[in-house]
Amino acid sequence: MSINREQLLAQYNQVRRATEAICAPLEYDDHLAQPIEFVSPPKWHLGHTTWFFEAFILNAYLPGYVAYDPHFQWVFNSYYEAVGDRVQRPKRATITRPTLVQVRAYRAAVDALIPVALRTVSDALLPELAERLTLGLHHEEQHQELLCMDITYILRCSPSRPAYAVDGPTPGICSSHPTAPLLVRGGVHQIGDASDAFAFDNERPEHEVLVRDVKIHCAPVTNREYLAFVDAGGYQKHNLWLSDGWAHVLNEEWEAPLYWEKTGDGWHEFTLRGLHPLELDAPVCHVSYYEADAFAQWCGKRLPTEAEWETAVRQHGTGGRGVQGIGETWEWTSSAYHPYPGFKPFAGALAEYNGKFMVNQMVLRGGCCASPKEHVRITYRNFFQPEMRWQFSGIRLAEDAT
Amino acid sequence: MSINREQLLAQYNQVRRATEAICAPLEYDDHLAQPIEFVSPPKWHLGHTTWFFEAFILNAYLPGYVAYDPHFQWVFNSYYEAVGDRVQRPKRATITRPTLVQVRAYRAAVDALIPVALRTVSDALLPELAERLTLGLHHEEQHQELLCMDITYILRCSPSRPAYAVDGPTPGICSSHPTAPLLVRGGVHQIGDASDAFAFDNERPEHEVLVRDVKIHCAPVTNREYLAFVDAGGYQKHNLWLSDGWAHVLNEEWEAPLYWEKTGDGWHEFTLRGLHPLELDAPVCHVSYYEADAFAQWCGKRLPTEAEWETAVRQHGTGGRGVQGIGETWEWTSSAYHPYPGFKPFAGALAEYNGKFMVNQMVLRGGCCASPKEHVRITYRNFFQPEMRWQFSGIRLAEDAT
Amino acid sequence: MSINREQLLAQYNQVRRATEAICAPLEYDDHLAQPIEFVSPPKWHLGHTTWFFEAFILNAYLPGYVAYDPHFQWVFNSYYEAVGDRVQRPKRATITRPTLVQVRAYRAAVDALIPVALRTVSDALLPELAERLTLGLHHEEQHQELLCMDITYILRCSPSRPAYAVDGPTPGICSSHPTAPLLVRGGVHQIGDASDAFAFDNERPEHEVLVRDVKIHCAPVTNREYLAFVDAGGYQKHNLWLSDGWAHVLNEEWEAPLYWEKTGDGWHEFTLRGLHPLELDAPVCHVSYYEADAFAQWCGKRLPTEAEWETAVRQHGTGGRGVQGIGETWEWTSSAYHPYPGFKPFAGALAEYNGKFMVNQMVLRGGCCASPKEHVRITYRNFFQPEMRWQFSGIRLAEDAT
Amino acid sequence: MSINREQLLAQYNQVRRATEAICAPLEYDDHLAQPIEFVSPPKWHLGHTTWFFEAFILNAYLPGYVAYDPHFQWVFNSYYEAVGDRVQRPKRATITRPTLVQVRAYRAAVDALIPVALRTVSDALLPELAERLTLGLHHEEQHQELLCMDITYILRCSPSRPAYAVDGPTPGICSSHPTAPLLVRGGVHQIGDASDAFAFDNERPEHEVLVRDVKIHCAPVTNREYLAFVDAGGYQKHNLWLSDGWAHVLNEEWEAPLYWEKTGDGWHEFTLRGLHPLELDAPVCHVSYYEADAFAQWCGKRLPTEAEWETAVRQHGTGGRGVQGIGETWEWTSSAYHPYPGFKPFAGALAEYNGKFMVNQMVLRGGCCASPKEHVRITYRNFFQPEMRWQFSGIRLAEDAT
Repeated sequence: MSINREQLLAQYNQVRRATEAICAPLEYDDHLAQPIEFVSPPKWHLGHTTWFFEAFILNAYLPGYVAYDPHFQWVFNSYYEAVGDRVQRPKRATITRPTLVQVRAYRAAVDALIPVALRTVSDALLPELAERLTLGLHHEEQHQELLCMDITYILRCSPSRPAYAVDGPTPGICSSHPTAPLLVRGGVHQIGDASDAFAFDNERPEHEVLVRDVKIHCAPVTNREYLAFVDAGGYQKHNLWLSDGWAHVLNEEWEAPLYWEKTGDGWHEFTLRGLHPLELDAPVCHVSYYEADAFAQWCGKRLPTEAEWETAVRQHGTGGRGVQGIGETWEWTSSAYHPYPGFKPFAGALAEYNGKFMVNQMVLRGGCCASPKEHVRITYRNFFQPEMRWQFSGIRLAEDAT
Repeated sequence: MSINREQLLAQYNQVRRATEAICAPLEYDDHLAQPIEFVSPPKWHLGHTTWFFEAFILNAYLPGYVAYDPHFQWVFNSYYEAVGDRVQRPKRATITRPTLVQVRAYRAAVDALIPVALRTVSDALLPELAERLTLGLHHEEQHQELLCMDITYILRCSPSRPAYAVDGPTPGICSSHPTAPLLVRGGVHQIGDASDAFAFDNERPEHEVLVRDVKIHCAPVTNREYLAFVDAGGYQKHNLWLSDGWAHVLNEEWEAPLYWEKTGDGWHEFTLRGLHPLELDAPVCHVSYYEADAFAQWCGKRLPTEAEWETAVRQHGTGGRGVQGIGETWEWTSSAYHPYPGFKPFAGALAEYNGKFMVNQMVLRGGCCASPKEHVRITYRNFFQPEMRWQFSGIRLAEDAT
Repeated sequence: MSINREQLLAQYNQVRRATEAICAPLEYDDHLAQPIEFVSPPKWHLGHTTWFFEAFILNAYLPGYVAYDPHFQWVFNSYYEAVGDRVQRPKRATITRPTLVQVRAYRAAVDALIPVALRTVSDALLPELAERLTLGLHHEEQHQELLCMDITYILRCSPSRPAYAVDGPTPGICSSHPTAPLLVRGGVHQIGDASDAFAFDNERPEHEVLVRDVKIHCAPVTNREYLAFVDAGGYQKHNLWLSDGWAHVLNEEWEAPLYWEKTGDGWHEFTLRGLHPLELDAPVCHVSYYEADAFAQWCGKRLPTEAEWETAVRQHGTGGRGVQGIGETWEWTSSAYHPYPGFKPFAGALAEYNGKFMVNQMVLRGGCCASPKEHVRITYRNFFQPEMRWQFSGIRLAEDAT
Repeated sequence: MSINREQLLAQYNQVRRATEAICAPLEYDDHLAQPIEFVSPPKWHLGHTTWFFEAFILNAYLPGYVAYDPHFQWVFNSYYEAVGDRVQRPKRATITRPTLVQVRAYRAAVDALIPVALRTVSDALLPELAERLTLGLHHEEQHQELLCMDITYILRCSPSRPAYAVDGPTPGICSSHPTAPLLVRGGVHQIGDASDAFAFDNERPEHEVLVRDVKIHCAPVTNREYLAFVDAGGYQKHNLWLSDGWAHVLNEEWEAPLYWEKTGDGWHEFTLRGLHPLELDAPVCHVSYYEADAFAQWCGKRLPTEAEWETAVRQHGTGGRGVQGIGETWEWTSSAYHPYPGFKPFAGALAEYNGKFMVNQMVLRGGCCASPKEHVRITYRNFFQPEMRWQFSGIRLAEDAT
């Protein structure tokens, strides 16, 4: 397939500008905070996504290229052990230089050089460059969603509970009437990506899975439904919880989803739009796997596996009469995150992109209101540790079809 | 099926005496130590297994039974939230009363009353009692293996590295010649327990799984093979390791399996028989999932899934020309520990027996030199967190059949 | 001064037997627990005090002596860096070998050899040996008190709250009528030891201190008085507390002295005699420096300095018309533990005995019900970190004389 | 004494501008970092010092004053429990709103209102207001020094080791020739503040102390002298160290003062002027009490008490023929930080200013290159925990005069 250099460049510019647009409503100060280990300062995201292009494109394909600043690799490498030392994740906010202003200049400089690299690379090397560039863009899109997650967490720490924007992304209400669960017909089905389009290594190869007959709920669980669980003492009943989850409930005094706050005026939720009364019809968001599982236990139902989830979408489609609400909140599955049979990691240093995280995490499917549109695809495998809640994660129920 | 009360009683006495036989070679002091959070003092095992029969049999089926000591429930309950408060696991060794002598008396008292309960229970209630008693015996057998694990850990802490017994259980050498891996034919196969015999709830129901063609190695990995990995710098090469595993290598300074020690005289291994030069032909033992996976990466191979493992045994059998070495060390699989489709936990308080641990753990299969013979069955699902190494865990390799 | 070998030996035997008498009421199990880092298992005390004589007497003065067991130095050295490696303090209970039985044999062996060393040492070396032996005896007496502290802590951990002995040491009621505080006349006075008798290096030299006129209370603070502080919300009023102390109140949820327990039946106190209703007329015991200071603040008074304390006793004597209650509970002073001017540590490895701890601790004076009689002397300087409460520590008030 | 309102206002403006001048060379980003718990973001200092005037002046003396922002008390209160809740110290950098821009506006607003309060307050209330305002200014001056400490720490975290300013404060070389130590004549002397000028409550009252004859070194210890200690293995010799100090050496891998760095090119020191080769003739700086004490041990000398220190300065004066180098680095004394006899804390909420910290800290005397000139006075008592090193702390030696 022939590669159109200018088209690729247009994509590059579109993605890069989108990242900056996400940061535009922030105050300077908001870019620099790391209130908890797993949240990165937006300044770091801006630098790290840029470093990715420098390290994997400019260093490799622009003859004579000299590192923009020798310290930046150490500051902006995230976890590529093969690429060298790096600042420890919890210490990202302790680095004040480069400043945000300097990071923006770094972005501009790399953005000025990528077109040169792209336009001058030989035809022979172009496919490889294009592949890496495309990965870099999808990587940056992942960080766009991380930015939204981290910004929410950061703003929530200020006592004034400042809004990010009046139209900041929040999970939309799923407007359909309640309908009976969808029956997914069991059998040996295919899941995973088999297309020519971009996909992460962890989505491949397409392969057969054995699925049993199962009913999948049309709509994700709403705040109204989850509130009933809270009001019924769900956070006080150990028998609903996985043992490790119960330990989190006790040690971290969980009483509700991450961003719910009870004021004198009832339950509120903090979102990118500020602190507002809980929207009862919206899907519940920012729950951990433990909460999702406990809620399902309380309902006498369960979470779907990722094979069931993907099969349900393949059989019924999304939207109106199918699996609804996709793209509003990620949906926890009951599948641990492991490689697909025949998994082949990306080549070289990029082998570290996904494979080494394939333990101790659970798969989420679907996409959320903060996901770039391209990422809301039915084979996409998101993953988090079961205690994590700052991602836009919700619940879809399944039940055995007997 | 009619239940033979005396036969059941004979089993009861056999299992109970076996537990005491395991402790017989210990010094009094060895019963009381808890050198690390996850190791329990043998005194505690002796009391806890007894408490299980008191709580679930005597309390329920012996009319007029009064608790042996009201404090014992608090001391000897392990994790049954439904049964009430309990001493925190890391604090088990801080309780000096009851003494070991008193715990032995407690055992004797319960052992005197179980026959009364068993012989006097009505025919109507007998099946239920028999079911619980049988579970209690398998529970106690699980603790027999835990005792061997904990005793090894405890004795290893003393600078004289005392032996438990000259014939203490250690993984036996697999005598077969190296042979080509066994080909497992893919397809939709059955795994899980479908028998009338006892099985834990997590082994059921038998169900279909889709397995691909795969080659399973006949013999488990030996110390000789693992030593080559150590000598080749396996513990220094980040690219072989899962990210969470690499963090353990660095933070806990892992350099070899848990009980290997390098002396001026070369590598030794501490086992229940004391500290001896490393037996190169014995299977490697006391490795974590992370080490098993890194070793497999280094070999260019992988670990089998639990479905592949069980299918391999069903197709080829064990021993001479089949899957060899089973019952020497547990074998890590690449499957996360989750419920089988259609899983039904035990009833009542015993629902907590297995289900609530089904997250954050990996499945091991096979059985080990310290397992009671009944537990070395092909459907048995053992499980540990991937960093754990004090169980008798080894490695069997698999590779894609292409 | 001529040294009487047999008299010294008699003292040796008396002290050694006293240690064993303290352990006599214990169960075997009680000897082996270390419920918290700063508590040592009684077995360890028995071994460590013996090791002291082996290391500093037998090794040095018994020709041809060979270490009883080469592992014991590692196990029973407490903190003498100069003498070699040692087991980390929090891990003392993880060592099961030597067993308690073996430790008792070790004691017997050293007790058999000390007389040989003492009787055969040359006259030239005798003074040095005698000096070390005497230090060893005072050292062992310090451990006798530590044993009482640790035994209390250990027994308290068992849910049955077992008594050590019906006549176990507890702080006695100070029978005198309340009387006006004693006026201590200020001026340049002497404190510290100037005698020929044994004293620790930290008690010397006698030296001048400047004391201001001060009033010292005759009697220590009683449980009745301290209960008034508790009932008045003393543990809820931050303004009474030192900042570091308030952090302990919040983090460790302090509500009363260490061994007070509120039952349905009112306040009780656990002592070596078991759990009994709070003895209102007894001196308050097991309070930290922070609690002592907060109580004094609440009274509008203060704690005495160690110079004031010693001067009060020198001027007024102890007992009936003087400073009463000495020898019941240690009394916190407001003096940090630092060397006296002209302080000279013991020679050689024993230099580590006291000097290196002279920071971050506060001085206590007087002696307690668990102190060997010889240690209740007016120059004795006890010391603990200000948060510690498991020693038998109480409160004596002072106030400025204006 | 009559109070000149305009003169006071001039002082106010001078101090406030000085704080801003300290921050002027910083990048915006440098204001926001908290790389370790005990370092506060400069933004926080700017807000907190302002809050002090708002809370203690505007709220009290400006009729009708309404809080600038109700969240600010929570954000900018440091430790005044009596004034209400506050953000936990280690979380100061997690608050992004108010922004630095808003904090500067807050400063401007308070600076606009203080003159109104000062000029309109009644003559009757003026003395009280003036007293608080003066305290607020000295408080802000303390934060000016803290700013220099924190800025150094913050800049050091960036891999480029950026300089603060080419003429940033660093300890100056003490130009005098080495001379014999000064003999301080013992006796009963006075220390503490007895002037009409401002002093903190902890400097008062002036009182008698008993001092022994002592020799005090004219000059502070230099980097050259300290380097000899480093080169002689001072950080490897346990016998030189206090026990708690040795634990820090091992756990934190101390090998030299906080800001020394060994490069291929020898020892360098990071200061506010950047990373430069170690200035051998400058006084050693950024050492802990433990290091100061170990160095003194190694020299066969000791640290002075605070009474000796102040007496030496009273007897010999500072500069040329007296105690030299004062005002370059703080000097550790061997005195724990406790109240002077007759200590009276400031009134009201300000009682928390000093008194509640009088435990677990050591006194430092003299002043440093980052201290406002007014604070370099001979009665000033600085204090830090003995492990702290980010203050500008050095060493002056003393020795017994025998």
